[in-house]
Amino acid sequence: MKNITLLGATGSIGIQTIDVIKQHPDKFKLFAISFGENIQRALPIIEEFQPLWIVVKNKEAKEKLINAATKIDGQILYGTDSLDTICEHDGVDIVVNAVMGSVGLSATLNAIRNKKQIAIANKETLVTAGHLVMAEAKKYNVDLLPIDSEHSAIFQALNGEEKKQVNKIILTASGGSFRDKTRKELENVTVQDALKHPNWSMGAKITIDSATMMNKGLEVIEAHWLFNISFDQIEVVQHKESIIHSMVEFVDSSIIAQLGTPDMRVPIQYALTYPNRESLPTANKLDLVSIGKLHFQQMDYNRFPGLKLAFEAGKAGGTLPTVLNAANEIAVDLFLNEKISFLQIEDIVEKMLSNHQNIANPDLETIQSVDLETRKKVLEVL
Amino acid sequence: MKNITLLGATGSIGIQTIDVIKQHPDKFKLFAISFGENIQRALPIIEEFQPLWIVVKNKEAKEKLINAATKIDGQILYGTDSLDTICEHDGVDIVVNAVMGSVGLSATLNAIRNKKQIAIANKETLVTAGHLVMAEAKKYNVDLLPIDSEHSAIFQALNGEEKKQVNKIILTASGGSFRDKTRKELENVTVQDALKHPNWSMGAKITIDSATMMNKGLEVIEAHWLFNISFDQIEVVQHKESIIHSMVEFVDSSIIAQLGTPDMRVPIQYALTYPNRESLPTANKLDLVSIGKLHFQQMDYNRFPGLKLAFEAGKAGGTLPTVLNAANEIAVDLFLNEKISFLQIEDIVEKMLSNHQNIANPDLETIQSVDLETRKKVLEVL
Repeated sequence: MKNITLLGATGSIGIQTIDVIKQHPDKFKLFAISFGENIQRALPIIEEFQPLWIVVKNKEAKEKLINAATKIDGQILYGTDSLDTICEHDGVDIVVNAVMGSVGLSATLNAIRNKKQIAIANKETLVTAGHLVMAEAKKYNVDLLPIDSEHSAIFQALNGEEKKQVNKIILTASGGSFRDKTRKELENVTVQDALKHPNWSMGAKITIDSATMMNKGLEVIEAHWLFNISFDQIEVVQHKESIIHSMVEFVDSSIIAQLGTPDMRVPIQYALTYPNRESLPTANKLDLVSIGKLHFQQMDYNRFPGLKLAFEAGKAGGTLPTVLNAANEIAVDLFLNEKISFLQIEDIVEKMLSNHQNIANPDLETIQSVDLETRKKVLEVL
Repeated sequence: MKNITLLGATGSIGIQTIDVIKQHPDKFKLFAISFGENIQRALPIIEEFQPLWIVVKNKEAKEKLINAATKIDGQILYGTDSLDTICEHDGVDIVVNAVMGSVGLSATLNAIRNKKQIAIANKETLVTAGHLVMAEAKKYNVDLLPIDSEHSAIFQALNGEEKKQVNKIILTASGGSFRDKTRKELENVTVQDALKHPNWSMGAKITIDSATMMNKGLEVIEAHWLFNISFDQIEVVQHKESIIHSMVEFVDSSIIAQLGTPDMRVPIQYALTYPNRESLPTANKLDLVSIGKLHFQQMDYNRFPGLKLAFEAGKAGGTLPTVLNAANEIAVDLFLNEKISFLQIEDIVEKMLSNHQNIANPDLETIQSVDLETRKKVLEVL
């Protein structure tokens, strides 16, 4: 039985993690959860699983939760410091980090230092502080298990292989909701249009990031850290069906790929059961015959400048990936709130990157202050 | 340094094995070779590598070889018994079994009993005597390393995985040279037409077997034995580009596939370097973008009755796979010599199977006598 702490239980990955846990009551126990303020989504989880610990955003959320629930056995805490409590607890075997944004970073570092396995869906952790996280993971000999479908695919393709025999990593990109539009046609797209992802059902932020290809850019930086591979050895190929989730080419030119229907529960479960696999009865089996064709297309870096920016920021390192991530997060938020146009997202990120004085090898404090500063600056320039 | 005995040095797989060995003079030494009578092809190999042992078909071939060569350092032997000598020699690390037909079987068994690793390209070995070969391999704890691109793909996909977590194996089939023809159109096809394989450059026998899909049928039976998996867990999917060489679906519905350009040197080298990989500078890298599309199509068992016959013979077991293989071998030979039409190949195989009194769990002698008997019968009924 594995005791699981789930950070970000009410988000898209959180809910799907709950679904995986539910299918294996003999293997997984939901030990602790955190969420922000979405009590409506959290209540059925709490009442069904009765985790020992529940962390919410603040005191008000705690009170609302108490008032709304009929029965809560666990302790209710609040605030980001309380995340540490549920990550470092002796009873925890694995921490699923599915929170959004930079709050996931210190929780990850704390879990690593307490030698917990980490299933990681929080991009910011590796994008902004990959050098710190990987150094700690190495020091404490902790597995970082990717939940992203692309990184899970690479992780699976590397099973039983030597990393030094990797020639390159090929990340596939669906192209997002606007893949068939020219840049001219992007000028007047709406939030509703952007939220219609062709293959995956995901949260709003990541769906917009897929449309700008910034999501793939963040994944490139993540892959660099997770698999200890240079940016020159990472290639992005457009593959509109999202069936091949990613690939690894080895030195003998053999390629190993992981395929499946677009179902996040498969990589989530793999992270939870690793190094084993378990059946996942509710998952849809891939039927290549009924799909018929898989398409592959060159990535167009002029069409998707966000991807180019991410490669550049990743290669430069330092605090530039933090600026990339923070600027993008605020810009996407502004777009979702209809304060800026779709194309302004990329403009803002580019402007923030070019105005930033890069700081090499930043520590956690520096990363956090650059993060905050960037967010403030984006709002100022508007 | 690995000392290699190469059985069948002048065939298509043999020549490509030589090419792999040539690229890694620091890793592989050609210790011994066997070939039939093709002295013209064998001479440059012998003069370049000077193997310690050379086995040819018969006394005449030995004399011809001596007369044709300028310098031979190694000992020249002849006859099938001499294959045992070069398989069991203390100096041998790995035996590459690339001979055609049933002569490979006793050499394989002998190599296993002498605890040699075996790289196996000889289909008959597993098709006719899989139960014997796998039992011996288990007893002597010997690795059977597949060289067929499909089985190598499955073998690679299983790297680091538990076999009990395999849900099914998906073999891909190009469809061969006649994949776009109806059965009506097959009535008058010529040998030349049949030898034009769309993707792979292979020997004549296997190219005809690809056109009848009997090759895939033999591969199904091989996969059953190699990977200890039931026939119900083996699926064949038509994939005309031969880029995905085969796949494994696991219990969590995740699929691992191996991809590459159609280049037999990649699986050959993998068998030789296993569990490592080495660079193969002359191999063409796969470029999915330039290929653009991969196609998948349901196998039509009415269009390709040979595949259906193979599944049936494989499931029934006993001596039926031996009959399937022997009848097919002679029928293909008759077709290549323009004695029968293309469609008669399948007719002959079907007739031989339906007239055979199956013998369960046959020993080596029984297999060999059924093999001979079937070959004789095919020639009698004509």
